Amino acid sequence: MDLKQERAVRTRNQILRAAAEVFDENGYDGASVSSIVKRAGLTLGALYFHFESKQALAEAVMNSQPQAIEPRLHSDGLQRLVDITLVWARRLQIDPVLRAGVRLAVEQGRFGMRDVTSFEDWKQIMTGHLETARVEGDLREGVLPQTVAHFVVGACTGIQLYSQLLTGRADLADRTCDMWQLLLPGIATPEATARIVVAPERGAVE
Amino acid sequence: MDLKQERAVRTRNQILRAAAEVFDENGYDGASVSSIVKRAGLTLGALYFHFESKQALAEAVMNSQPQAIEPRLHSDGLQRLVDITLVWARRLQIDPVLRAGVRLAVEQGRFGMRDVTSFEDWKQIMTGHLETARVEGDLREGVLPQTVAHFVVGACTGIQLYSQLLTGRADLADRTCDMWQLLLPGIATPEATARIVVAPERGAVE
Repeated sequence: MDLKQERAVRTRNQILRAAAEVFDENGYDGASVSSIVKRAGLTLGALYFHFESKQALAEAVMNSQPQAIEPRLHSDGLQRLVDITLVWARRLQIDPVLRAGVRLAVEQGRFGMRDVTSFEDWKQIMTGHLETARVEGDLREGVLPQTVAHFVVGACTGIQLYSQLLTGRADLADRTCDMWQLLLPGIATPEATARIVVAPERGAVE
Repeated sequence: MDLKQERAVRTRNQILRAAAEVFDENGYDGASVSSIVKRAGLTLGALYFHFESKQALAEAVMNSQPQAIEPRLHSDGLQRLVDITLVWARRLQIDPVLRAGVRLAVEQGRFGMRDVTSFEDWKQIMTGHLETARVEGDLREGVLPQTVAHFVVGACTGIQLYSQLLTGRADLADRTCDMWQLLLPGIATPEATARIVVAPERGAVE
């Protein structure tokens, strides 16, 4: 990348972060493009150069979730699947872009949007790691990577919502561990179930 | 009940149903008490005799979910737990009170409500059926009814949301069956796992 491209990427990220903060605080309805521009310290022209509308901004925030998680991980296969959910659980408490992304994905129905990209992206990523697990002989016979991935995406969406209402997400890492303790014996071999580490600390990556 | 009490119950249900329809169509923000009164064909006085505010109405709609499901079931223990989720999956497509209840429970955060009663009621009901399953010897050793119930409530919340965005809930019964196929081996004995019927048709009760 040359300097000009680098600056463009930086500006785009700056807008994305400002948008996420405003969406996180006020929801989609309560967020205006002008308040996002103000928060980013940029001009309306700069924003519209990168994003054509508020909806495009919301979609970009929703769909940036994997980028906030995947580069932090070093495990693979089934352990990586577990790690994704634990890092997600932890970073939801500290990363406004991730938090806004999840909020928008959950609430989008009520403002007429129906973008399942963030769900489908996670499903595809998780399916890939489960395929690896299958090749490594870690899955029980008959367990389909895609079925597990689809279920885990849905289940995580719901447990974070319940956790948010009940504890402001303070118990989310523990509830995510519960999920794996209940789910692993049904999807993984006894050897893999015994080997996979399920603990809130797995989410504490920088 | 005497005639007067019967009429009061009927009026209350009439209001609840009208409120559910209006919430289901317009969300909480878009619903006004006057539109609910109009839909119910009653007076504002009748409404305020039964419910003190729009929020009280929303809470009543959210918390009437078990009443729409539990009386329809005749199984017990683990089979009943499975049946609850399958009847819930099916009736979400046809029962506006249930649909509005779930919508309000999911969206309440954005209008400043934080009523976890509907989640906690389901959790308590499910914990009871899982206690029965444990007494009947159907649970694996070390599996705690309360942990399973908490997880199932959260997971169902999320899979219905994902299903709604992806297929307008057309695949919800199938996804609920997937959940049980993945989960049962981890929580139930092999005998119980083989015995429990998991099929969309279980949800087709009147």
